[in-house]
Amino acid sequence: MFKVKKIDVNSAHNLIALINSNEAKELSLNSGDKVKIFNKKTRNHIFCELDIIEDSKKKVCPLNKLEIGLFEHAFEKLNVKEGDLVSISPSNKPKSLEYVKKKFQGYKLKSYEYDEIIMDISTNLYSEIETTFFVLACSIHKLDFKETVYLTQAMVKTGKSLDFSKSDSDIIVDKHCIGGVPNNRTSMLVIPIVAAAGLKIPKTSSRAITSPSGTADTMEILANVSVSLKDMYKIVNEENACLVWGGAFDLSPADDIIIHVEHPLGLDFEVQMIASILSKKKSAGSKKVLIDIPIGPEAKVRDEIHANSLKEKFEKVGKAIGLDIVVILTDGSEVVGNGIGPLLEAIDVLDILSNKPNAPYDLREKALIMSGILFRMAGHVKTRKKGYELAENILTSGKALDKFKAIIKKQGEKKMPDLAKFKEELVCTKNGIITEISIKKLTKLANLLGTPKDKAAGIYIPKKIGDYVKKGEILMTLYSNSEIKLKYALTCLEERCSNIVKID
Amino acid sequence: MFKVKKIDVNSAHNLIALINSNEAKELSLNSGDKVKIFNKKTRNHIFCELDIIEDSKKKVCPLNKLEIGLFEHAFEKLNVKEGDLVSISPSNKPKSLEYVKKKFQGYKLKSYEYDEIIMDISTNLYSEIETTFFVLACSIHKLDFKETVYLTQAMVKTGKSLDFSKSDSDIIVDKHCIGGVPNNRTSMLVIPIVAAAGLKIPKTSSRAITSPSGTADTMEILANVSVSLKDMYKIVNEENACLVWGGAFDLSPADDIIIHVEHPLGLDFEVQMIASILSKKKSAGSKKVLIDIPIGPEAKVRDEIHANSLKEKFEKVGKAIGLDIVVILTDGSEVVGNGIGPLLEAIDVLDILSNKPNAPYDLREKALIMSGILFRMAGHVKTRKKGYELAENILTSGKALDKFKAIIKKQGEKKMPDLAKFKEELVCTKNGIITEISIKKLTKLANLLGTPKDKAAGIYIPKKIGDYVKKGEILMTLYSNSEIKLKYALTCLEERCSNIVKID
Repeated sequence: MFKVKKIDVNSAHNLIALINSNEAKELSLNSGDKVKIFNKKTRNHIFCELDIIEDSKKKVCPLNKLEIGLFEHAFEKLNVKEGDLVSISPSNKPKSLEYVKKKFQGYKLKSYEYDEIIMDISTNLYSEIETTFFVLACSIHKLDFKETVYLTQAMVKTGKSLDFSKSDSDIIVDKHCIGGVPNNRTSMLVIPIVAAAGLKIPKTSSRAITSPSGTADTMEILANVSVSLKDMYKIVNEENACLVWGGAFDLSPADDIIIHVEHPLGLDFEVQMIASILSKKKSAGSKKVLIDIPIGPEAKVRDEIHANSLKEKFEKVGKAIGLDIVVILTDGSEVVGNGIGPLLEAIDVLDILSNKPNAPYDLREKALIMSGILFRMAGHVKTRKKGYELAENILTSGKALDKFKAIIKKQGEKKMPDLAKFKEELVCTKNGIITEISIKKLTKLANLLGTPKDKAAGIYIPKKIGDYVKKGEILMTLYSNSEIKLKYALTCLEERCSNIVKID
Repeated sequence: MFKVKKIDVNSAHNLIALINSNEAKELSLNSGDKVKIFNKKTRNHIFCELDIIEDSKKKVCPLNKLEIGLFEHAFEKLNVKEGDLVSISPSNKPKSLEYVKKKFQGYKLKSYEYDEIIMDISTNLYSEIETTFFVLACSIHKLDFKETVYLTQAMVKTGKSLDFSKSDSDIIVDKHCIGGVPNNRTSMLVIPIVAAAGLKIPKTSSRAITSPSGTADTMEILANVSVSLKDMYKIVNEENACLVWGGAFDLSPADDIIIHVEHPLGLDFEVQMIASILSKKKSAGSKKVLIDIPIGPEAKVRDEIHANSLKEKFEKVGKAIGLDIVVILTDGSEVVGNGIGPLLEAIDVLDILSNKPNAPYDLREKALIMSGILFRMAGHVKTRKKGYELAENILTSGKALDKFKAIIKKQGEKKMPDLAKFKEELVCTKNGIITEISIKKLTKLANLLGTPKDKAAGIYIPKKIGDYVKKGEILMTLYSNSEIKLKYALTCLEERCSNIVKID
């Protein structure tokens, strides 16, 4: 048995355990081996990669005899205390790799085969190499409908299941956007609107990976989003809703590992996306889910044919796992809202909830339509039009703002940061009509300015495609707390914003 | 600039750098980021994965302000001293990933595209996920002849090139077996035989990954095999030959990284194998190379059709990169030699070189044939038969043994270990003729006994397919320095050796 010592090193996604070389020798273990660490007290186990302290006079990371060092992520995941006793044993190659090999060779897999693969991935038994093997096998030989359902169900089975219903009449709804369009913070509007009308909507969101801001990042401007599961239950019981970061809830642990592998490959993993989204909604206890697919030349989905095929898959797989799904196809050709970046997006949201006249019309309209559909799905109204009217009523009456404030208070209110220290206004170089706005370039520009880390960084662009603009008029304003980043972003805009916005 | 501190932790294949969290924040770096570490003095650089020490009162791995910790492997690869100054900067996503994506989508790649991919892999710019992406893209869309040549050439370009020729008349030869058959230690016989006749044969070998012993492991019983490049040149100049471990020479750095990824996938990577073998032979300065493909039901190559197709590829790709290749197809249906495991194999080799009557006949015969072919390739004789006679003459005269002893002395002689402490003789349960010997099961059994780590562990099996055996006669002897391992191995042999050896 080894005594646990915490090593205060953050090794990102890797679970690392560390032992002395003479003990490794005795156990016939080598550095790089996958080992099982078993916590005797809690009977939990995790699989770690083993690093070994070489014999040397000067030890930078000293471990006493029979001590095991656990790097931060491993320490947290095993749920131990320093001094706890754990056992360490070599882990065998996961048997489910044989199924991955079968998939790679083009065979279809059965339900239990997906279950075993996803279970092994979720317990970290797969190395990154092996997870990549699975991801690419599924990418080369696309999963059919049945297999997609199996994969989704396997993800649900390995995750924690939440249940927010107090009685059978409780209708748990949710919404999800597949992403790709800046701002588009409909969640922060739809949730207070439908919650104010009595629907339960326990919303978990993600942080930005490559985008200027995720819903969790924007919400974090106003409130704490890292709440415990216990607090989440409490808030939803009291307010019908919450807007929290979902990363800590283990709703689909394999999915987080798979996404980490998919991300650097830059491929389109449609089936995994469907399984990922629907498994998390199912695990979070939702019954009726509205899914938003933005279509645009630079969005994730480029045309209606692809969007309709994706819509059908969402609906069919959803039905198979017991979810009522409605999919809407929306305009993803430009920014929805005016601000890009956590703070600027939060301001847009507050302006709409406060019914300010200068609030972005498009984002407001989209949120009302979506809320209306959720009312229709829940049976609160007979038609989407009636649903829209109900939503508008709740918004203009100030009830949505009240609900939003109540949610913020329960999650823990935060003081909004100041606007960024440095800004630069870009003006139009000629008269004309805006014919194109590149969301990809806007995203890149926002990231150069410091989003999502610099919460106040970003772009404010109130103009929309079709707007008439005059020479000298302000087209957009760039914000950053770093003068260097602002200057660098400006030099990257060779011809100022003429590449990002086309005026004819 | 950061001051280097060595962290005495062996993190296997991973290059890890460690900095304090406040410095990471200033540089906008996150844990898990790929960073470029630049050594100002030597102007070398490496790409590492970044780990971060979190702020905490108790620091297990303390770094002072502006210190960077390098784990062992990174420290060695960057070739720094403690206290050296290095810079750290975020590394961009490798551009060549676009080519990998193209390959994954089924396109053929050009020469410069392979060059860039292999260069980026060799400098550790690819993550394991990205290297796996490349390996699987090449596996799904097999490389054609041209692409195989491009890949091989790219591997040669990124590796160190050795040159052992003193004059134009110097003929540098080499031999290589694609593996899969236990014992088969022809290198340790062929090298002294052909070197004794004046051919230059600077042999680099590998250690076992999954087999009971690699040539480097067996040679290490008798001599030091980890020699510096300078010493290798000296030994080859004086003795025409050496038998050293090739892992430290960076002959094909990308290849080592690729093999590390291929290994856990358990797939057949034929093209990468050809590129790997031929690039290393080319980099090591060989001109004429004999390649041995054993064929057998449990060998890497199962039938003659496959073997002949592989033979043709070796010859064609070899020719394209300027190597004269001869391929022989040999019997891979059973063990070649009698011992399995480093020590037992070394004993076989010494018995043959010493012309002992009980020396394994099959291994001796194979080594003489191969030596004869090398003599023919080098133009020393007119026919393979004459070559065989020359080889036999050198062997029986004791010249090969003398040459072998000279090589051992130059590399650094080692005292041979004792036979293993524990042994168990397995006897035949009936009279009959041996019809099958499973090399896969023998390999597994040897590994259970402790090979290749326990150098004296292994199996001695003097019987061959076709031999007549009597009930009660010794069939094989198992050796191990661990009584527990020996007992465990025996319990795994449910019906003793009746599964491994079939007697009819």
